Amino acid sequence: MFEILLSDLSGQPLYLQLYTQMRNHIRSGVIRNGTRLPSIRSLHQQLNISKTPIETAFQMLLSEGYIVSKSRSGIFAVNPHENWPAFRPSIDLRQQGDVQNPIPSQSIAAQDIRFDFKPAGVDNEMFPVRIWRKMINEAIENHSADISKYGDTQGEYTLRAVLADYLRKSRGVVCSPEQVIIGSGIAYSIGLIVHLLKGIGRIAHEEPGYVQVREVFALNGFHMLPIPVGEKGISLEALEASGAQAVYVTPSHQLPTGAVMPYSEREYLLEWARTADAYIIEDDYDGEFRYFGKPISSLQSLDHYGRVIYMGTFSKAFTPAIRINYTILPIQLVQRLEELQHILNAPSRVEQWAMTSLIEQGHWYRHVRKMRNTYQRKHQRLLELIESHFSNKAKITGHSAGLHIRMELKTHLPTEELLKMAAEYGVKVYDFRHSWINWVEPEYPEIYLGFAGISESAMEEGILLLKKAWARVWS
Amino acid sequence: MFEILLSDLSGQPLYLQLYTQMRNHIRSGVIRNGTRLPSIRSLHQQLNISKTPIETAFQMLLSEGYIVSKSRSGIFAVNPHENWPAFRPSIDLRQQGDVQNPIPSQSIAAQDIRFDFKPAGVDNEMFPVRIWRKMINEAIENHSADISKYGDTQGEYTLRAVLADYLRKSRGVVCSPEQVIIGSGIAYSIGLIVHLLKGIGRIAHEEPGYVQVREVFALNGFHMLPIPVGEKGISLEALEASGAQAVYVTPSHQLPTGAVMPYSEREYLLEWARTADAYIIEDDYDGEFRYFGKPISSLQSLDHYGRVIYMGTFSKAFTPAIRINYTILPIQLVQRLEELQHILNAPSRVEQWAMTSLIEQGHWYRHVRKMRNTYQRKHQRLLELIESHFSNKAKITGHSAGLHIRMELKTHLPTEELLKMAAEYGVKVYDFRHSWINWVEPEYPEIYLGFAGISESAMEEGILLLKKAWARVWS
Ligand SMILES: Cc1ncc(COP(=O)(O)O)c(C=O)c1O
Ligand SMILES: Cc1ncc(COP(=O)(O)O)c(C=O)c1O
Repeated sequence: MFEILLSDLSGQPLYLQLYTQMRNHIRSGVIRNGTRLPSIRSLHQQLNISKTPIETAFQMLLSEGYIVSKSRSGIFAVNPHENWPAFRPSIDLRQQGDVQNPIPSQSIAAQDIRFDFKPAGVDNEMFPVRIWRKMINEAIENHSADISKYGDTQGEYTLRAVLADYLRKSRGVVCSPEQVIIGSGIAYSIGLIVHLLKGIGRIAHEEPGYVQVREVFALNGFHMLPIPVGEKGISLEALEASGAQAVYVTPSHQLPTGAVMPYSEREYLLEWARTADAYIIEDDYDGEFRYFGKPISSLQSLDHYGRVIYMGTFSKAFTPAIRINYTILPIQLVQRLEELQHILNAPSRVEQWAMTSLIEQGHWYRHVRKMRNTYQRKHQRLLELIESHFSNKAKITGHSAGLHIRMELKTHLPTEELLKMAAEYGVKVYDFRHSWINWVEPEYPEIYLGFAGISESAMEEGILLLKKAWARVWS
Repeated sequence: MFEILLSDLSGQPLYLQLYTQMRNHIRSGVIRNGTRLPSIRSLHQQLNISKTPIETAFQMLLSEGYIVSKSRSGIFAVNPHENWPAFRPSIDLRQQGDVQNPIPSQSIAAQDIRFDFKPAGVDNEMFPVRIWRKMINEAIENHSADISKYGDTQGEYTLRAVLADYLRKSRGVVCSPEQVIIGSGIAYSIGLIVHLLKGIGRIAHEEPGYVQVREVFALNGFHMLPIPVGEKGISLEALEASGAQAVYVTPSHQLPTGAVMPYSEREYLLEWARTADAYIIEDDYDGEFRYFGKPISSLQSLDHYGRVIYMGTFSKAFTPAIRINYTILPIQLVQRLEELQHILNAPSRVEQWAMTSLIEQGHWYRHVRKMRNTYQRKHQRLLELIESHFSNKAKITGHSAGLHIRMELKTHLPTEELLKMAAEYGVKVYDFRHSWINWVEPEYPEIYLGFAGISESAMEEGILLLKKAWARVWS
C-alpha cells in the first residue's frame, strides 16, 4: 500500500517518524483520501515494533483530522486538502486545465465550477457512438486472424494510406503512406522527433506557445528558444536572429493566441528553413476548423524541400479519449526511422482498423462536416453572446479558426483577479499563463474561452454569469 | 505519393534524374511494391516538363523490371527485392521476427514458411472475441459522458486499482494504484524509466537479453553493460563487479534462455540493489505461465526497500494487438512523476475501461486460467514431439515457464546452417542471435521454438518436417 521506513538512527522517536510519514503520505496523496489503513495490530506485526508508538501516532493523526475511525469497518485516511490543487500525481493535470493554465483560484473547489470554457474541450454530444461501435465490432470480427499479432509499429499500412488521402484532400498535405507515423498523441510524436532531430541542440518555439511540446523537448535536453508571437503568428525576424535549427509552430490557429499565419509569412518561413537547413514542426492540431476567410494551405503542402514535419490529431474532430494522432515526415527523415524501430509503438490495432473503416466508408468525412457545422454555430453563438453582453468592453481576437477565442477586456485589473471573480460565480475561464516562459501582465487582461466542450445553453448562462461576476469592474 | 526533385543545376539530364529517383524510391520501398504510378500525362503536368524524358525514364524502368504496365489499368511499381530483408521501414520488424532474429535465410521468401515457431507468438484461437466486444460496447455505452474527454495520463484510476489487486493475487506484487502507470508497451515503459533514472549513466542488462529494451536505453544515451546469463539467470558476481546503478532483468523466464532465477539469487540481487543504492527493472512479461516447480515470488514482492521497478504486459496472456502494459514504481519514484507529467500518455480510455470491466467481472481470471491450460498442453505436446523425434539428439532447456523453449542440438554444424535447412522445408525456427551484443557460436547450436502462436497440429507437422530437414545432420 505505502511505505513506512523507520530508523533507529534518525534520532526521532518511532511514534514521530510514523506520524510524520503517514501524514505526508496522506497529504501528498500517496495514501488516497478514503483509503482504509492497516489496523494497529497488522502494523505492529508488519513493522515489528510495539503497539504503543503506533497508537500514539494514530491518536495524533486522528486529532488532526488525517484519519477517521469508523466502528467495525476500520481506520480511513482523510485528506483535508482534497479539494486543493495540491500535488496529486494520480490526477490528470490536463483535464484539470493545469497544463495550459493553473486553477484560477485556490479557494474555489472544482465542484463549484458549473460552466467551464475549457479551451481543450470537445463536444461530447456529437461523438458518433453508434457508428464507432459498429466500426470497432467489425474490426474485431474482420481481423480475427490478426487479433493476436503485433502490428506494424509505424501504424497499420491501410490507415496510413487512407489518412494520406484524407490529408491531401483536406489540408493539401502531400505524402505517401511511408511518410506517415501513427501515434498515440503529441507526447509520442515529439518523443520521436527528439530522436530524429538528435544533434540539433536549439529549437525555437512560440512564446506564448503549447506547454506540452516545450516541456517534452526540454526534458530531453533541448535548449528551447522562445520567439514572440504577433498577429501573424511567430515573429520571423526574431526566428531568423535566434540561430535555431528547428522551430515548432501552430500556423493554422496559434496556441493560444489564435493568430493565423498568412500565406506570405508561410512562404517566408519555408524559405528560412531552406536557407538555414532547418526543420519546421507544423502542428495542425485544429486545422479542420476555420470560420472566416479562405483556408490557407498547410506549410507541408507548400514545402518543396522536405523541411516540414507535419502533425495532426484525432483529438479535436473526433475525441481525445481514443489516443490516435499522426506525424508526416519528409522523405529524408523516413530513412532514419529504421534506427528508431525500437521506439516506434503504434496504438491499438483494433482502433486503427476501426479508424481505417471509418474513413474508408465515408463516415469520417461526414463527421468532420458535422463537427465543422456544430463548431461554426457554437463559435457564432459565443461571439454574439459576448457582443451583446460586453459590447464595447471586450475585444475578440484569435477567432477565425480553432476551438477557442481570446477576449481582451477594457480594464486594468490583473487577469488573475478576473478569473477569480468569474470562479466565484461558478464560471471557469482561462489565461494560458503557463504558455509563457516569461509571463508579463498584458496592458489589458486577455481571457481565453473554449466553446467546443460546452453546450449552447450552458454558454449562454455562463456568459450571463460572467457579466454579473465582472459587473463591478466597470461600475 | 512520393517526391521527385528535378534540378537544372545537377548537370544530369532530366530522364536520368527521373529514372534514378524513381528506381531508388521503388528499391527503398518508399514507392511500395504494387503501387499504381501516376500516368505519363499526369507526371508531365505535375513536374512541368515535356513528355519525352518521362517516357525515356519509364522505358528504362520497364526494361529493368522496376515497373510493369498493365493494359487499361496503368503502370505499377515492382520491387525486385521485395522478398529480401531489404530496408523496408513500413514493415513491422517484430512481426517478421527480425528484432529478435534476422530472417534465417535470405533466399527463403516469407511466404514459403508454413510453420513458424515464433517465440513472440500468441494463441490466436483463444482470444475471447465475444467477451471483449461486450466489454468494449459496454465501455462506450457506460462512459458516454466521458467519451470526449482526456483521461488520466497515468492511466484510468479504476484500471490501476483492479490491476494492483490482480498483481497482488497473482504475482505477490505489493502496490497502491498511485504506483501503477498504464502504458502502451515496453517502449513506452522504458521511455519513462529513461527519465526517472536520469543521472544514472550505466545500466546492466542480460547478455543475451531483450533487444528492444537494450536499444531504447542506448538510443537515450545510456551506457549498457552486458552481464552474462547462466542457468540461474544473470550472473550476480559479474553484476556486482560492473558498477552498474541499475539492471534490467527477466527473472521469471529469462529472455531468451528461459532460465528462472531461484529464490536465493533473488534475495541476493535485492541485497545488491539495497547496498549499491541501485534500481532493479523487473520485466515479468510472461510471469503468468509456469509449468514445473513452485512459482517463485516476483522480485517486487520480496523487495522491502523500494528498489524494484516492476513491469508486465497484456501482450502474452491477452493480445499484443491491443497495446496495454503496466509499470509499478517504488514510492520514492512516484514523487518524480510530476516532473514527467508532460510525457505521460496513457492508451485509449475505451480500451482501458473495457479492460477494467474484464478484470472486475472476473473474465480476466477465467481467461488467464484457460490460457495457462492451453499453453501447458501445447508446451507438453512440443516436449513430447521433440522427445519422440529427436530423442538423444536434442537437449531441451528453458522450458519451465513462458512461451518458448530452447533446444540444444548434438552437432557441430553452425546454427545458421540449421535454420537455413529448416527454412528450406518451410519451417521457421530461431537463434535469437540479435539478443547478444557479442554473439559467439555456441559449442552446440541452440535453437529457439515458441509454441504459443502455433496450433498443435501445425506443431506436429512442423517438428516432423524439422526432422526431415535435419536428417542429413546425423546421417
Ligand atoms: C497545440 C496542440 N497540439 C496538439 C494537441 C493534441 O494533442 P493529442 O493528440 O496528444 O491529444 C493539443 C491539444 O490540446 C494542442 O493544444
Ligand atoms: C522480454 C519481453 N518483455 C516485454 C515484452 C512485451 O512487450 P509489449 O508489452 O510492448 O508487447 C516482450 C514481447 O515479446 C518481451 O519479449
